[in-house]
Parts: sequence; C-alpha cells; structure tokens
Amino acid sequence: MSSTRQKLIQLLQENDTKYISGQYLSDKLNISRTAIWKHMNELKKDGYVIEGKANRGYRIISYPNKVSENTVRWNLQTEWLGKHVVHYESVPSTQPVAHKLAQNGASHGTVVIANEQTEARGRMDRPWYANTDKGMWLSIVIRPTIPPYIAPQLTLLTATVLAEVLADEVGVQAQIKWPNDLLINGKKVAGILTEMQAEQDQIQYVIIGIGLNVNQTREDFVDEVAHRATSLFVETNKEWDLVPLIQRILETFEAKYTEYIADGFHQVKKTWEDYGFKLHETIEIKTGKERWKGVFLGVAEDGALLAKRICDQVVKKVYSAEIAWFD
Amino acid sequence: MSSTRQKLIQLLQENDTKYISGQYLSDKLNISRTAIWKHMNELKKDGYVIEGKANRGYRIISYPNKVSENTVRWNLQTEWLGKHVVHYESVPSTQPVAHKLAQNGASHGTVVIANEQTEARGRMDRPWYANTDKGMWLSIVIRPTIPPYIAPQLTLLTATVLAEVLADEVGVQAQIKWPNDLLINGKKVAGILTEMQAEQDQIQYVIIGIGLNVNQTREDFVDEVAHRATSLFVETNKEWDLVPLIQRILETFEAKYTEYIADGFHQVKKTWEDYGFKLHETIEIKTGKERWKGVFLGVAEDGALLAKRICDQVVKKVYSAEIAWFD
Repeated sequence: MSSTRQKLIQLLQENDTKYISGQYLSDKLNISRTAIWKHMNELKKDGYVIEGKANRGYRIISYPNKVSENTVRWNLQTEWLGKHVVHYESVPSTQPVAHKLAQNGASHGTVVIANEQTEARGRMDRPWYANTDKGMWLSIVIRPTIPPYIAPQLTLLTATVLAEVLADEVGVQAQIKWPNDLLINGKKVAGILTEMQAEQDQIQYVIIGIGLNVNQTREDFVDEVAHRATSLFVETNKEWDLVPLIQRILETFEAKYTEYIADGFHQVKKTWEDYGFKLHETIEIKTGKERWKGVFLGVAEDGALLAKRICDQVVKKVYSAEIAWFD
Repeated sequence: MSSTRQKLIQLLQENDTKYISGQYLSDKLNISRTAIWKHMNELKKDGYVIEGKANRGYRIISYPNKVSENTVRWNLQTEWLGKHVVHYESVPSTQPVAHKLAQNGASHGTVVIANEQTEARGRMDRPWYANTDKGMWLSIVIRPTIPPYIAPQLTLLTATVLAEVLADEVGVQAQIKWPNDLLINGKKVAGILTEMQAEQDQIQYVIIGIGLNVNQTREDFVDEVAHRATSLFVETNKEWDLVPLIQRILETFEAKYTEYIADGFHQVKKTWEDYGFKLHETIEIKTGKERWKGVFLGVAEDGALLAKRICDQVVKKVYSAEIAWFD
C-alpha cells in the first residue's frame, strides 16, 4: 500500500469519532482534494466504509473484515503490543521473519501476521497446517527482562492468554496440553512456538508464534491431522471474525505479560493449572530415553512439568517430553 | 583462493608424508603440469614450504604461520570440530556470521575465524578490542542435545578448555572470572560469549565466541582497557604462533565437550573450581537491583554462581551479575 494511503488511513483512524475535512487531509498529506477523493474510492473498494458529508468531511465507519496492518491496529487497546505490525498475504512462516526483524533491532511488541503460511512449523520442527486464510497466524517479538532459564514460563503465559480469550470471546472451554497446545474436546485448536535468542545470562529476544484454527471446516483439515485437529467453527458452528479475535489476544497478552513482569509467575501458574489438560490424572510421559506413567501434579516455578512416577512415587521434574493419556 | 589452489593444497596435505607426482596432480586437477608448477610457485610465495624432487614429485614440508582455513585444518586432530572452517581476513564480528551460518543449517562443529574483527563485542554488548591480527578470534557452532536451561554450563566448559590449554601449552596459570572471562595476574586475557537460539525445550544451536589476546604488546591496548587487559606476549615475553594454539583449543574443546555430553557437568564443575577466580573469598555481587557482599562458594549444577551472603549467611544462587573483588 502506498505510504500516502497508509497516512490517510492513519489520519482517519486517529479521528474516527469525528469528521475531518477534505481540506485538512489535503494539507496534511500534501496532495490535491481530487487525489483524496480518489484514495477514498479505493479504500471503499477494499471494504472500508467511509462516510462523506458535505461541509463536514470524511469519517471512517468500519474497516474491512480482513486481516491487515491497518485493521489489526485500528482500535487496538494496547500500550506497546502491535504498535508495529508487519503483515503478509502469504509467507512461508511468520517465525523466521520475526527472527530476522528482531535481529535487526525490531522493538518489543512487534507483531508479524500473515493471512496464510505455506511452510508453518510447530515444536520440534513438525509441520503445522496453515495454508489457509481461515486461521490466525502470528508471531510476537518481545524483549523480556528475565533470565533465560525461566523463558519457558512465556509459553505457559501465552497458553493462558489463548484459553481466557477463547472462554471470554468465543465461549468455549479449551484445555492446555503441556507445554504448548490448546485442545477443545481433546482436539488441537491452537499451538504455541516459543523461540529465543539469548546470551549466558540475558535474553536478546523471544519470538512467540501462535497458530489458531478459526474458520476451518472439518473438510479443510488434511487427512494426517483430521482426527486430532479442530477449529472454532467446528466447535461452535459459527464463523468468527479474525480481527477482533486477534485484538483481544494481543490486548490480553499485554495485560498478562505486564502483570507477570511486575509480579512474577504465580498468577500465570494458577491460571495455567485452571486450564491444565489431564491435571491430577495419570498420564504417560515419553522423553528421548524413557517412557513412564505418572500423576500430573502441575507446573514448576520454571515452567517444567511435575509428575509423580507411579512405579516409585518419586516426583519428577520434566523439561522436554511428549505426553500421552488414557481415555 | 581459487578452488584449484584449494584442491591442490588438499591433495598435498592428504599425502603430506610422501611425495606425489606432478602427473598425478595434473590428472586429478585436470590442469597441465605447467599450471601445477605455477600454482606451486604461488603457494611458496604465500609461505608454504614445498619440496620438489625430480622423478619423485612434490611434498609439503610446512604451512605458513598465518591463520587460514587450510592452516587451521592441516593436522587438526579432531573428529568433528573444525571440519568446516569459514575464514575471514577481516570481519565486523565472527559471532553474527556464525549465527547466520547456523540458521542456514551449518553443521555441528563449524568454526568461523578471522584475523581481525572490526566490531567485536562481549557480554551485554560491550565492545571487545579485536582490531588486530595479534589475537585469536573465533566462533564455534554447536548443536548440543541438552535442555536450554543448562546451556550456561557451556560457557564454564569453554573457560576450562582455555585455562587448560594456557597451562599446558603456554605455561601460564590463568584464572576464570565468573562467568566468562579469563584473567592472568588479575588482567583479562580472554573472553567467552555464549549465545543460543532455542525452543521451549530444545536448543537449535549455540554459538561460542572466543577472543584470546595473544601477541599484543602493552602499547597495542587502547587506553580504555590498558589497565585491565593483558596478552600472552605481555605475560610471557614471547610471541606465540596462533595456528597451533587454535588447534590445541579446538582439540581440547572437542574432548571435553564429548566427555560432558556423555557424563554430565561434574568434571567441568570440578575443573572450573580449580581455576575459579576468588573462590572461597569475599566478593561483591552487583545485579540489576542490588549489590551485596558474599563468600564465593562455587558454581551450581546449572552454571549459576553460588555465594553465601555476608549480612545474613544465606546461600544465594546468582544467574546474572557482575562481580567485583577486594585486593
């Protein structure tokens, strides 16, 4: 989009409760009133609803329901998260883009968002199906002032953000499967991929990637995942507008993150355990070397999983594992 | 260097105990014997000593004492470390080059080395003076199969490698100042910068940057660091060949790393404490928020510093701090 177009949208959005005159816009943008009028027509074609009143000027009524830099930022109620949004129609994956931006100095709170990802991946480099504009695919760049060894807490924090937004906005009760998935009725609706670059004792940056299945139908899921994936549409029989969902997620993330940095992990841990999948039940834990059954006790202060091993009743702290369960 | 030149050096080096005929080289490289002869003369100009005997052929006697891909690799006694060497005459910093290589899939054990770094930096982005070919400046790419939270152990491991090579090869007793510096007589001779990219529960790669002051004179140090920096030359009054030092460091690193992956941190911790600066003494610990005096007890299992606070005799575990001391 041309920078004049972007500036125009910004001016309209800064003044979205009142009319602004064509003359004011023309002065500010240093273009003719005819040019302003042409831009307005283009915006309307894109789905913007703009009211034009003689002698009063222009006023933006609504944005197109399409994920873009402008729609995400319009009316977003945050202090620092999403103030800089980098948007792609289609990108192999938002995660490496965010890494590159962070390495080049992108600020805390930068968001990379795509309508479609063609080569998305989850934890352990597993593929994640995001070749559709029916999901929410974004990566957040943050620069937390916490020591690297507690960074896994950020995955748990993000999971609680998603669980709460799904409960409050969509009315579905999701569960968090340790460490990084959200399930509805036992099927995966969202995944989180937290990656960081760090020195010995300080984090340079963290990228939090979030994939959320929103409007996919059952038929949209490829065969490999159909039996274990779901979407908000499948669960609620209703299509969901992506933009407000994204905004609620960013707003909730900012609020919870701010509280976490100020007060520590306590509240996150508590909320996480409210949504924890199979908490207090017997699960099977598979690590690289071993496989054992235990009672899932909760999450430790550093984000590890705590489980009491059945065979010897020893409480074990697990940093990396797959968990399986028994229905 | 042309790939023919590199291939020629490789053929000579693979056969460095016996003569190889000009005809054999000509066949292998698909160039004329006159071209071979011209290449040999160029190599001699670069400082290679090559013996040519009528009816027997060529044999390499010695390499130039100049850091390059070939000189570092020739006779290097390692299995995987330094099998791939990327060399620069001058580079802003070897560390970001190594990051980029790692992100593009560089293998475990790749080494980036430069004769000079123009924008080197240490921990916390502090400048490190490496605008000279009198030091050793390199970055190692490794892909350790350890959980991210114990990655700080790798800095301590690297410090023990440097301390042992300095003791064995140079005959100087260095001390390791937690977490990442080596001192001789209280002045900094080497620094280590460990950076990683990691997911929640697995390391993607670690870059270990090492800077070692070798042949600098007192006058070579810029004013800001002159009072607290030293070099092997300053301490021993002797110039040191860089290539053998680099090779001993890579070989010792590989050996200690292999032992560490197989047997854990125990031996590293023990060696570290043998060289630990101000161990069992009173030090001052400065973290972002506070400043206190304590007795330095050693390093914890996860690489943190352990100190008993003077004011209340509580043992504290410190992940990020500056330490100061009292002479």
